[in-house]
Amino acid sequence: MSQFSRFHTEIQNDEPSRAGYFHTAHGTVHTPAFMPVGTQGTVKGVTPRQLVEIGPQMILGNTYHLGLRPGDELIRKFGGLHRFMDWKGPILTDSGGFQVFSLSSLRKISEEGVAFQSHIDGSSHFLSPERSMEIQRNLGSDVVMALDECPAGRLERDKLEISLARTTRWLHRCRDFPLGEHQGLFAINQGGTYLDLRLNHMEQILELDARKPFQGFAVGGLSVGEPKEEMNATLHDFVRQLPRDRPCYLMGVGTPEDLLFGIEQGVDLFDCVLPTREARHGRLLTSRGRLNIKNARHRESAEPIDPECSCYTCTTFTRAYLHHLFRAGELLALTLNSIHNLSYTVGLTRAARQALLENRFPDFARRTRDNWNTEEP
Amino acid sequence: MSQFSRFHTEIQNDEPSRAGYFHTAHGTVHTPAFMPVGTQGTVKGVTPRQLVEIGPQMILGNTYHLGLRPGDELIRKFGGLHRFMDWKGPILTDSGGFQVFSLSSLRKISEEGVAFQSHIDGSSHFLSPERSMEIQRNLGSDVVMALDECPAGRLERDKLEISLARTTRWLHRCRDFPLGEHQGLFAINQGGTYLDLRLNHMEQILELDARKPFQGFAVGGLSVGEPKEEMNATLHDFVRQLPRDRPCYLMGVGTPEDLLFGIEQGVDLFDCVLPTREARHGRLLTSRGRLNIKNARHRESAEPIDPECSCYTCTTFTRAYLHHLFRAGELLALTLNSIHNLSYTVGLTRAARQALLENRFPDFARRTRDNWNTEEP
Repeated sequence: MSQFSRFHTEIQNDEPSRAGYFHTAHGTVHTPAFMPVGTQGTVKGVTPRQLVEIGPQMILGNTYHLGLRPGDELIRKFGGLHRFMDWKGPILTDSGGFQVFSLSSLRKISEEGVAFQSHIDGSSHFLSPERSMEIQRNLGSDVVMALDECPAGRLERDKLEISLARTTRWLHRCRDFPLGEHQGLFAINQGGTYLDLRLNHMEQILELDARKPFQGFAVGGLSVGEPKEEMNATLHDFVRQLPRDRPCYLMGVGTPEDLLFGIEQGVDLFDCVLPTREARHGRLLTSRGRLNIKNARHRESAEPIDPECSCYTCTTFTRAYLHHLFRAGELLALTLNSIHNLSYTVGLTRAARQALLENRFPDFARRTRDNWNTEEP
Repeated sequence: MSQFSRFHTEIQNDEPSRAGYFHTAHGTVHTPAFMPVGTQGTVKGVTPRQLVEIGPQMILGNTYHLGLRPGDELIRKFGGLHRFMDWKGPILTDSGGFQVFSLSSLRKISEEGVAFQSHIDGSSHFLSPERSMEIQRNLGSDVVMALDECPAGRLERDKLEISLARTTRWLHRCRDFPLGEHQGLFAINQGGTYLDLRLNHMEQILELDARKPFQGFAVGGLSVGEPKEEMNATLHDFVRQLPRDRPCYLMGVGTPEDLLFGIEQGVDLFDCVLPTREARHGRLLTSRGRLNIKNARHRESAEPIDPECSCYTCTTFTRAYLHHLFRAGELLALTLNSIHNLSYTVGLTRAARQALLENRFPDFARRTRDNWNTEEP
């Protein structure tokens, strides 16, 4: 298998926003890119074939979920996550940390790692940096995320500093673990909305990076309940100070508005469950803003969800049909809504990339925002 | 639009089983054929594209459900059911009678029709022969079913005779209703498991048929709770006495075993919710009999559901993956299971047809039954 490549920047100007790409054993990732989330070995509601048509550059798999069920050893026996779920493109796996801290119960954190009980059956498990790396090696993902301690949304400064120090020590242990040849490791920066803490943590990461470079850097611990302005200010001030020769991944983000803002700050990769989760509730993302397909005004509408969208759902079905399916509780509603929301989100980052390559990104961003805000979808 | 064609028999031998075809405005229907059920304007769990790949000759739409929601007038405005749901092949719609008698509450039956309350919101509605025809004309289906009174599974003989007489009078009113030019009308024969009542009812139908021919005949009121032997005896004795120049449709049947037996008796068309409903419960139909994908023995199985099956699910995914998806409650499990069960059932009738055309049907039927019964799937 081919090695992970360095990040290539295709556009260099005075702004932090940029288009770029890097190679993995399962294909090239063109950025900026939004990664659909395949929590349990499937992007909820769509087949791998439908996903190919949606066209994401990379998808995300969850270490916590897959490690518990069906188990990473089983997936390894089946040739890794790509083959198990029939996704031939690049896969990034998270570290499992976020889910251990948000989903499981009876957590006990020590220097060694986190003891926790499964949210499925209450069974006892232990997630250490080494175990996180082992699971991700078994899954065979292209991008492996280092295990970080995920501090609560608004931790006090002194507690956060203690947590950051542990995350750095854990990063050393992750770095020492032998991954698969084709796998690249991303380090995660924490620090909440304290810019100085983030910069300080980044210095520690870069010391380690100087010995053996990471393939990317992730911004963790944002979009976890803090006011949007604080998140945006942190992104604005922080992302441009990262080494620009590696991709920057903003974890767990987000809304179309967040993606556009993130791209403006120089973020290259995003992931979020929002498009599929919203789809399952009938809430659809469009070039003219959000709409709820349950709304009675769509009952007799011959319009597609979004006339600007070229996805299967929008090129085939009317709002009236989708309204009917959703009201009738049909499975197909969930699939068609998910196809659209994923297509819209992936398409937004693809269009942003094209605008960057053609040196018209500020204009693209302004028009996109105007369209979201000025017309009823 | 082209007219409905007469039924062409391709195989004529001493057995009642046969292969045939008839043309509709939306394509040719090759028989024997199993029709997947699209109750509410969607075959549950699959997209129209996936359905094209599954390859049914015709699908079924429900007059009762679609008349109530979203309403047949709305579907007419959208160009009919074919365009509304994006199914370009032939569609048969039932009369709505069976659902009125089985799903709705507070029914009041009169000579004029049936007053009932919607199972959705309790609203009051009236289904008469004319209203059933009107709904089906608005839906624009290729095959329209006459409205029959659906007697309870095991009605006494004298009550059944009264019901049959009314069904005949209703058939006259259905026949008098002006349908769309492309639409063909099937008459429904009732009579429970009383052969003489069925034959007598059929005589009444044929009197009407002599004036203006029906495009097909349906056997109703079987598989509604009577012992399987009685249903089979009725089919055996009755179907061969039908006019053989029209397709014979056995309504609401059934299991793979029922399909094979029905074909042997000369049945040409079948419909049933069984493949998709079973799929949603993890129960899968295979050439070696049934299996339940939830079963722990599939947990590490690298086998497809059915090595004989060429559907998307079987050519792409292992039982281990499908077991995992089902256990994890993923939507994709329902879709992939439905694709398989529909492919298996449609494929069974397709294979039976091929065997009939090649004059090896008895051998095919024997082998099929042997495979169902001798090996663990």
